[in-house]
Amino acid sequence: MNKDQLVIFDTTLRDGEQSPGASMTKDEKVRIAKMLEKMHVDVIEAGFAIASEGDFAAVRAVATAVKDATVCSLSRALEADIRRAAEAIQPANSGRIHTFIATSPIHMQHKLNMRPEQVIEQAVKAVKLARNLCADVEFSCEDAGRSEMDFLCRIVEAAIAAGARTINIPDTVGYAIPELYAEQIRQLIERVPNSDQAIFSVHCHNDLGLAVANSLAAVQAGARQVECTINGLGERAGNASLEEIVMAVRTRPDVFSVTTGIDPVHLVPTSRLVSTITGFAVQPNKAIVGKNAFAHESGIHQDGVLKHRETYEIMKAEDVGWHTNAIVLGKHSGRNAFRSRLQDLGVEFATEQELNHAFMLFKQLADKKHDIYDEDLQALVSDSRAHEASEVIQLVALEVQSKTGEIPLAEVVLSIRGQEVRTQASGSGPVDAVFKAIESQVNSGASLELYSVNAITSGTDSQGEVTVRLAHTGRLVNGLGADTDIVIASAKAYIHALNGLEANLERTHPQGSGI
Amino acid sequence: MNKDQLVIFDTTLRDGEQSPGASMTKDEKVRIAKMLEKMHVDVIEAGFAIASEGDFAAVRAVATAVKDATVCSLSRALEADIRRAAEAIQPANSGRIHTFIATSPIHMQHKLNMRPEQVIEQAVKAVKLARNLCADVEFSCEDAGRSEMDFLCRIVEAAIAAGARTINIPDTVGYAIPELYAEQIRQLIERVPNSDQAIFSVHCHNDLGLAVANSLAAVQAGARQVECTINGLGERAGNASLEEIVMAVRTRPDVFSVTTGIDPVHLVPTSRLVSTITGFAVQPNKAIVGKNAFAHESGIHQDGVLKHRETYEIMKAEDVGWHTNAIVLGKHSGRNAFRSRLQDLGVEFATEQELNHAFMLFKQLADKKHDIYDEDLQALVSDSRAHEASEVIQLVALEVQSKTGEIPLAEVVLSIRGQEVRTQASGSGPVDAVFKAIESQVNSGASLELYSVNAITSGTDSQGEVTVRLAHTGRLVNGLGADTDIVIASAKAYIHALNGLEANLERTHPQGSGI
Repeated sequence: MNKDQLVIFDTTLRDGEQSPGASMTKDEKVRIAKMLEKMHVDVIEAGFAIASEGDFAAVRAVATAVKDATVCSLSRALEADIRRAAEAIQPANSGRIHTFIATSPIHMQHKLNMRPEQVIEQAVKAVKLARNLCADVEFSCEDAGRSEMDFLCRIVEAAIAAGARTINIPDTVGYAIPELYAEQIRQLIERVPNSDQAIFSVHCHNDLGLAVANSLAAVQAGARQVECTINGLGERAGNASLEEIVMAVRTRPDVFSVTTGIDPVHLVPTSRLVSTITGFAVQPNKAIVGKNAFAHESGIHQDGVLKHRETYEIMKAEDVGWHTNAIVLGKHSGRNAFRSRLQDLGVEFATEQELNHAFMLFKQLADKKHDIYDEDLQALVSDSRAHEASEVIQLVALEVQSKTGEIPLAEVVLSIRGQEVRTQASGSGPVDAVFKAIESQVNSGASLELYSVNAITSGTDSQGEVTVRLAHTGRLVNGLGADTDIVIASAKAYIHALNGLEANLERTHPQGSGI
Repeated sequence: MNKDQLVIFDTTLRDGEQSPGASMTKDEKVRIAKMLEKMHVDVIEAGFAIASEGDFAAVRAVATAVKDATVCSLSRALEADIRRAAEAIQPANSGRIHTFIATSPIHMQHKLNMRPEQVIEQAVKAVKLARNLCADVEFSCEDAGRSEMDFLCRIVEAAIAAGARTINIPDTVGYAIPELYAEQIRQLIERVPNSDQAIFSVHCHNDLGLAVANSLAAVQAGARQVECTINGLGERAGNASLEEIVMAVRTRPDVFSVTTGIDPVHLVPTSRLVSTITGFAVQPNKAIVGKNAFAHESGIHQDGVLKHRETYEIMKAEDVGWHTNAIVLGKHSGRNAFRSRLQDLGVEFATEQELNHAFMLFKQLADKKHDIYDEDLQALVSDSRAHEASEVIQLVALEVQSKTGEIPLAEVVLSIRGQEVRTQASGSGPVDAVFKAIESQVNSGASLELYSVNAITSGTDSQGEVTVRLAHTGRLVNGLGADTDIVIASAKAYIHALNGLEANLERTHPQGSGI
């Protein structure tokens, strides 16, 4: 059977980043984008250019770094938005402007305060302007799931006539049911006279746990682009998981008449990278990329797997990038081995100096920890980059004790704008004491929203990777820190988050999107 | 419309427990079962009685504790299994025996080494025996998804004729696609002559992210029981999530012609309890019970929600048990307030002594931590129960320092079988040093598989809750520890896990199930 190509549109960097607490820096977005490119994602939605200076800079950086995938920016159906999007994607080999407007009665009335005719008019104007600035234009009907079919047909026809080459029908609120959603897509393709001039796309939210099923049902009804994210990240319960869409299509070629260009061996490493950067854990029972996804516990299953592999396995763990934690580097590994292993992990160094700095950290780690795994390297790079950027506050030294029956007292030496200060505080535990000591000098007024530690690899000498999330006047920032000493890792993470607040690196999406 | 009742069959305690690392003690199973009963789950599958002494005791304890739900034990289609299951559920007000055999060619040939005729014969014998011991019998066709339809019809008809009142058609390997799975259920109900004498049930695995969609499609095709788990726990990528099934049916009454008896306000507390007990985190973007499931990040969405609630919300957070972290107790709260709050959380104390012990721990915590939340209470109970059971090893005292540039040295005093020993060790961090000191006395030879810390509530004085998973000769045990000092919490968790290894409390499921 000659199969159609299914376009995989990844929106981890846009809708994924809209998850509260999942904000990413420009550098982090570029690292994820490079992995997506390596996996052969077709379109990378890198952000919402007009939302903030940070969003703009990130879209532009991704458009510059990525060569093989199309790079896309979101924009409302407004002139300023579209011009800003065009400017941001200008460096891309292949760029796309994605513009949207709400089409459901509830949204047109309560959010836009516009009549349906006005909405069509604005959509057409937006698509035409975008086409003047970029050959590849996508148009989305926000809250399509609750829009009237007749109106949807009219606005979609008008958008295609105005030059949109992709028409996206999102289930914005995660309310759709596979059968009905597929029927909506089927009807649209049938009824819109110029539907053959566009690719129909779906964008599903997972509020009822049906995002993947809805997307796949739509594909069977004729959709040829799926918008999805790594780990199913995204607003509220998230979007359809890229890894589940890709592996469902691949595992059931008897059912789906499409193929994707994705090389699935990068799924697990990319999942880990996104999880490390956002601080969003992947639950062990997550399909494809969860730690247990390929683990067989019960005796009967194990027996079955040994007797005949296919009795219980429908996919191979190796195919999606799982492999036994191979010891990759140790104390005696050289600079070239280090650089080349990081290249395999999608990490490139801009300058020789940056490489040297990371290699020095690696040597320090190898002194403390016998075997260095891929996860250690990822953490090391995250940690080293975290501490490169705008270090207003630096950790100089720290000392604190844990002793049963005593209240811990922390002594911390910080360098704040180059000036060393010594501070101390007691707390309900060593981490609390350290945080209080730091805060007593910095006076950020931020509140601690999340504190989590994961051992990066197993074994007792494993590094601890700490994520700290601070909230301050409506903004959320993440801080990361890695160290074999979790108290020191915690201090690093806390200081990283404080520097993030200082540097205003993170964005609040005052104009976030509604798809 | 007069709606059919959809039977909610929860298998968190059986299939959920089969996740590697999710083993539960008898006491933990009873706590979860009590929450499931409170939520009005119809059937609780409490375990696989013949798998081990521990499984048997747990099923029996759940059958004794639960009054309103049916309590079920799994069993292969073998006489010894069925007799053991009947014995385990004997104390239940309403008990069920669930017996299964594989029906796919690949399983019959490679796992059972039996001809199809022999399989039918054994199934009939098993169902008849079960019916002699229990009025309520369920029969499952393992790997039904890859079975031949004609054969399935024959074995299902025979099982119903033999007395099975529920027929379960599991998608054992998570390979099904909604449309095709629904068609299989529809055909079975149509073709099996005595299908009106049984309730058809589905049991889906989430390997392709479709467990919920497959279950719901089957319900539309006539299935009237769904087997599911809290948080979608279960082998590999898990089972269909109970919370997603329940809320999809409830949110889309226009689509589903069934209702459930579930009171959804207990969904979030139950999710938390299961996550605390198993150490399996719920990812923030998990539908219904994830931390972000009801959080709206983007400005447009927030604006929309303020202007008109329904623009973006299809469910209410309160309905599923989310509420702002109310401060529930503090330093001055009395014993009655403490007991009654714990009752609300589903925790009962067997003896006055047990209550007194927990209350003492609460007072100790309140001295260190200003505001006590529900999560703190759950952790405190887990922690206190962890240290009740068979304490071969106890932590007496601990001292360790974190200091930048120095290797930490831990001094630990343990009581091993009543005898105090002092031990010390250095390590790559304070936690590593403490673990090495403990191990140098205990010599368990166990390897550390997982180490994770979560702050239970936000705020810097929050307790740390540590999960440690140890592996030893093929067995996995979890240890939990909570303390405002994460180094001490880590030591407690490590010792708890070591006591678990000693006590042989955990099970390896040598005869685990294959559904």
